[in-house]
Amino acid sequence: MANTIGILLFDDVEELDFAGPWEVFSATAQQLFPDDRVVTIAQELRPIRCAKGLRVLPDVDFTTAPPLDLVLVPGGQGTRREVSNPTLIGWLREAGQRCRWVTSVCTGALLLHEAGFAKGRRVTTHWAFVETLRQRGDVTVLENRRYVRDGNVVTAAGVSAGIDLALWLVGQIHGIDVARKVQRGIEYDPAPPYAAEV
Amino acid sequence: MANTIGILLFDDVEELDFAGPWEVFSATAQQLFPDDRVVTIAQELRPIRCAKGLRVLPDVDFTTAPPLDLVLVPGGQGTRREVSNPTLIGWLREAGQRCRWVTSVCTGALLLHEAGFAKGRRVTTHWAFVETLRQRGDVTVLENRRYVRDGNVVTAAGVSAGIDLALWLVGQIHGIDVARKVQRGIEYDPAPPYAAEV
Repeated sequence: MANTIGILLFDDVEELDFAGPWEVFSATAQQLFPDDRVVTIAQELRPIRCAKGLRVLPDVDFTTAPPLDLVLVPGGQGTRREVSNPTLIGWLREAGQRCRWVTSVCTGALLLHEAGFAKGRRVTTHWAFVETLRQRGDVTVLENRRYVRDGNVVTAAGVSAGIDLALWLVGQIHGIDVARKVQRGIEYDPAPPYAAEV
Repeated sequence: MANTIGILLFDDVEELDFAGPWEVFSATAQQLFPDDRVVTIAQELRPIRCAKGLRVLPDVDFTTAPPLDLVLVPGGQGTRREVSNPTLIGWLREAGQRCRWVTSVCTGALLLHEAGFAKGRRVTTHWAFVETLRQRGDVTVLENRRYVRDGNVVTAAGVSAGIDLALWLVGQIHGIDVARKVQRGIEYDPAPPYAAEV
């Protein structure tokens, strides 16, 4: 069964928030499931300027996006603006309702919440935005988790946690053996060189 | 002291090979060292089509690239072609000679070797290309290391190992406390969901 995976892009999206899951999903498609398709989706077909300055060309816009089986909403500074963008939130609400999986990384959870998917659910987000998300109401925000699954809504912590999320989702969609192969392919056997500041 | 960090791009570059280090270096610059500059560099100023299909606009080309303190060479399918591209190898040889750090991720080590930087050195690369790199001669290729430092040449294993490499380099350039802050900022506290296939 072919899967279509859509990754939402917008100006000031955080680079690794989407590039990590992009790598995991598209490596799965390219190497093992060539009928799967991974597309980047933006409101308009013009270059996206990411939060750290990388410029990316989206594959499709809201009017040409294919029906999705999984939508992934990254975070980044741009979410502060996009949470009040009715066009983006409206597209997300509609596209997500037809998805098997509705997912976010980092502050992408704020957009999921605005579109209605996080309400009444257990979710997570970047550690620095836990209170911000709680204040939006009707949501249980868990801390110190790489990702949280509640029904078909799966939300990851900050930035690099999107890699863990995407691997977990590949395991759900295609089986754990496939996820292991992909993990081995991208050598995701991480060893952070210094202990993180706490 | 301001640092200029250049990330080489070419068609069929592996997305996470460069996006991981890009995130680490540019988060450091944006949040802590605004005089640092991180630029993507390609032979020509046209969109790069990455190995998995993501399209990225490079910041500068070989003629407009600023002098670099650190050059990072990602890997990907495109290295098979670029290893025989005298323009790219020539640019890398010249730019690298003036760098404090000459670095690669994944099969980017093949390009470093062709440009002369890996000869007689201890290096690493993606696990599936260890023999390929050894066969190019006059190099010691270590296995099962996230990254290897030999003098000013630092090479990472496959794909995701570039994140570890970049954090280590930030620790060398700006101190370990800075690297810890960046690591915490991108929540690099990884937890792969399944054991990797071995």
